[in-house]
Amino acid sequence: MALTYNEFYNERTGLTIGVKRLLFSEQTPYQLVEVYETDTWGNLMTIDGMVMLSEKDEFVYHEMLTHVGLFTHPKPERVLIIGGGDGGTAREVARHDQVKRIDMVEIDEAVVRASKEFLPEVGAFDDSRLQVIHEDGIKFVQNNKEPYDVIIIDGSDPVGPAEGLFEKDFYTYCYDALTEEGVLTAQTESPWVPSYYSSIQKVFQALDDLYAVNKMYLAYIPLYPAGMWSMAITSKGPKPLSVDTLNRVQQGLDQFGDDLNYYNEAVHSGAFALPNFVADILQ
Amino acid sequence: MALTYNEFYNERTGLTIGVKRLLFSEQTPYQLVEVYETDTWGNLMTIDGMVMLSEKDEFVYHEMLTHVGLFTHPKPERVLIIGGGDGGTAREVARHDQVKRIDMVEIDEAVVRASKEFLPEVGAFDDSRLQVIHEDGIKFVQNNKEPYDVIIIDGSDPVGPAEGLFEKDFYTYCYDALTEEGVLTAQTESPWVPSYYSSIQKVFQALDDLYAVNKMYLAYIPLYPAGMWSMAITSKGPKPLSVDTLNRVQQGLDQFGDDLNYYNEAVHSGAFALPNFVADILQ
Repeated sequence: MALTYNEFYNERTGLTIGVKRLLFSEQTPYQLVEVYETDTWGNLMTIDGMVMLSEKDEFVYHEMLTHVGLFTHPKPERVLIIGGGDGGTAREVARHDQVKRIDMVEIDEAVVRASKEFLPEVGAFDDSRLQVIHEDGIKFVQNNKEPYDVIIIDGSDPVGPAEGLFEKDFYTYCYDALTEEGVLTAQTESPWVPSYYSSIQKVFQALDDLYAVNKMYLAYIPLYPAGMWSMAITSKGPKPLSVDTLNRVQQGLDQFGDDLNYYNEAVHSGAFALPNFVADILQ
Repeated sequence: MALTYNEFYNERTGLTIGVKRLLFSEQTPYQLVEVYETDTWGNLMTIDGMVMLSEKDEFVYHEMLTHVGLFTHPKPERVLIIGGGDGGTAREVARHDQVKRIDMVEIDEAVVRASKEFLPEVGAFDDSRLQVIHEDGIKFVQNNKEPYDVIIIDGSDPVGPAEGLFEKDFYTYCYDALTEEGVLTAQTESPWVPSYYSSIQKVFQALDDLYAVNKMYLAYIPLYPAGMWSMAITSKGPKPLSVDTLNRVQQGLDQFGDDLNYYNEAVHSGAFALPNFVADILQ
């Protein structure tokens, strides 16, 4: 058995994963969606040759993208997910009892279809609070009428259909689509990959211009380039490291029990400690 | 140009790095030491087919293994490095003006020789406080007469000559070789690699049994398995997160200026935030 999945992020540096077989492959109107059965990571979804998630490591990304933002908001009832077609972010949002409505706007129905079939444990598609909408996320936010408490940008890399998710216009629409104490989190690529720097800088500059609060935080994701991933949290007021937020984290996690594999109170705070070379990217 | 260096950590999952050429290869009495010229990471040293360091990413490992420990000690004057033949840890130790003597016990002179020739910017071999000793580190510690304030275990993985660096006997000898407020740091492998778990558990159990203070902390190292690396700090009393220690970090970093690329005060504290699945390894 000699099949491997290979993804390079810095010329010829990258990841190799042993693969048993290709389970799903579809060139959609937007992108190439594939699912592989791997040796040791369960099933693995890639889009345009970039790892989105594996069954074994997805908890890191989904827990960190979701809970940092949801606990920062004092009362998250209406949550919008842009992208997130695998359903993992929706699953983490659904842990929060206060949430009354989860709208997931995934442009590509094939991502949802493939996830339901080949990553069945990942997505919370049966949650009655969840609506899955197959539209362009940018247009959806631009035309939105009823604002959200939390918006989560769970898109792919800044090439192809997700490119607009790294533009200032989009974050302006998001601002208008957020309630008064609105909070937004977004995935913002790896600080170890120089070719992403301009995208990272563009997003954080836009957030700085638009929002009252804006911070980068980090997570260890083994199958993403270099194993280090950055995320943004931005808001109209609530701060991710305030005493109020940290109290909410503590109380909330008591309710969750032992269901989380990565996120905890210490990780919530510690994730904001940026190594010097990462902080330098933002200057 | 089609040469790649490949290292697998979990069956067939692992790292690929584009390589221009092999610069050094020597089967020593202890191990296979090699240096490659890479596409984008500068020169890369491997031992027995495992990445030790590249010129571009070594700062993370060396800063984190060194400064967390040295700032935790109230007055580090005598420092012992076990392993560390590339000289990077000695370079970071040498930044601390209080240090009067640095003994580096590297069993394999070929590591030092290859590093001086092919990684010349890494090691602080010219520092007058540094003595390089080519002996078995375990025996050196066992027979030591004059104790050290800080011991840094900078060995390779728990196979081959470094295997003993994961045994309780060794940490007992270290205890006896430390001064009253002695501090020890050690590299303790990746929490994403199940085959390391027993080694990690063995080290932390030994440290728990022997030392008053014992904590794991983490660093993002892109060329190490899964990009996540764990380290241990243990001591006879001083605590890495005490107010005194954090004051020393702040004052010390003021003196260092802008020379560090990873370590800072926030990172010192944040590195101790262990994700749930990592904390679970230690239970």
